[in-house]
Amino acid sequence: MKSAVILLSGGVDSTTCLAIAKSLGFDLYAMSFSYGQRHHAELVSAQRVAAAFSVAEHRVVTIDLAAFGGSSLTADMEVPKNRSSIGHGSAIPNTYVPARNTIFLSFALGWAEVLMCRDIFIGVNALDYSGYPDCRPEFIRAFEIMANLATKAQVEGNRLTIHTPLINMTKAQIIARGADLDVDFSLTHSCYDPDATGAACGECDSCIIRKKGFEKSGVPDATRYANGG
Amino acid sequence: MKSAVILLSGGVDSTTCLAIAKSLGFDLYAMSFSYGQRHHAELVSAQRVAAAFSVAEHRVVTIDLAAFGGSSLTADMEVPKNRSSIGHGSAIPNTYVPARNTIFLSFALGWAEVLMCRDIFIGVNALDYSGYPDCRPEFIRAFEIMANLATKAQVEGNRLTIHTPLINMTKAQIIARGADLDVDFSLTHSCYDPDATGAACGECDSCIIRKKGFEKSGVPDATRYANGG
Repeated sequence: MKSAVILLSGGVDSTTCLAIAKSLGFDLYAMSFSYGQRHHAELVSAQRVAAAFSVAEHRVVTIDLAAFGGSSLTADMEVPKNRSSIGHGSAIPNTYVPARNTIFLSFALGWAEVLMCRDIFIGVNALDYSGYPDCRPEFIRAFEIMANLATKAQVEGNRLTIHTPLINMTKAQIIARGADLDVDFSLTHSCYDPDATGAACGECDSCIIRKKGFEKSGVPDATRYANGG
Repeated sequence: MKSAVILLSGGVDSTTCLAIAKSLGFDLYAMSFSYGQRHHAELVSAQRVAAAFSVAEHRVVTIDLAAFGGSSLTADMEVPKNRSSIGHGSAIPNTYVPARNTIFLSFALGWAEVLMCRDIFIGVNALDYSGYPDCRPEFIRAFEIMANLATKAQVEGNRLTIHTPLINMTKAQIIARGADLDVDFSLTHSCYDPDATGAACGECDSCIIRKKGFEKSGVPDATRYANGG
């Protein structure tokens, strides 16, 4: 059985990405990060999702991105709420974490090399992506080229592929695809600013994108909102 | 004053690289990693070097590369000694750490973005490099291209450069250049397998390359060896 490393945040996208990797017959090695997020609801979701998919292994790597500061997700800054313009053409919001996907993919690369596996999956999405540069196809292709020059495995002839099955899908399409693959979205978490019980705020970029995605997909939204939705 | 992030391991190469960045007029932001190395002699050296150069800031980032296993530098494997063939054309030794430079450069990228600086220095060396794929010029160029697609700073037009001033130098040339810049090499550490007092083994690849470098450069070697050299 082929094995693959899948970056798993516990959100809608990475969970659907995990389901797609499973549907392609890969043995699943899920990797999550504890990176100084202001809340741990997403790691709890990642663990639930990993268990639901009976992954071969789930590693949670602790790294200190908060040491950089520079993002409202890791530093003491306000998460923006009820923004009218999200995504293409709008400013990059302060929820952007410097070099996050570069760092996450670099760790996935190291683990993939040790596992002797040639496939990494990441649930990035260039359409409803909140404007992050490291979610764009040109970034992913450049990372793949770099990765294939970086490792002993590559020097020895094993080409590595970074799979981005969601990159050209809308959030509604992702949710529909996940539903087709029997993903239980009630296990997933998207909110940047949940309350103490883990309920979603309903107002941050991530909540707004998720909510619209469920509406457009026609899949029932089991998200628990702090204000009832 | 322009600022630069410099990856500093505390060895001969990264210390000379720091001295070169200083000679070019950069304000120095040194970054080191505590990555599950079997010994901490190199971090102690990095701190001494950073202090000697009066860097603006020295960050030591803790990351868990040992979680991957796969290298004698982080896992419970024997460090190879007295190898007759080192470098070009020989097998990659087990001191190779999966994706190490990729991960280190990714953290440097994140810090550079927060500092709004456009220059990263890394003391990689393609000649006496022990055969690691992530020390080659083609890897560095691919990383630079990827980095310039990864970050908000780049999207906003600030091009990032990865400087590798040592990449085409022999170890003897590096030592001679460092000596010209008044580097105190007694502060540096190279050995993969020092004794409890931090004295170098004199037999691992890193010791052998360092020893030969000092011999060929004509610079006196102040290294403290466990067996007297």
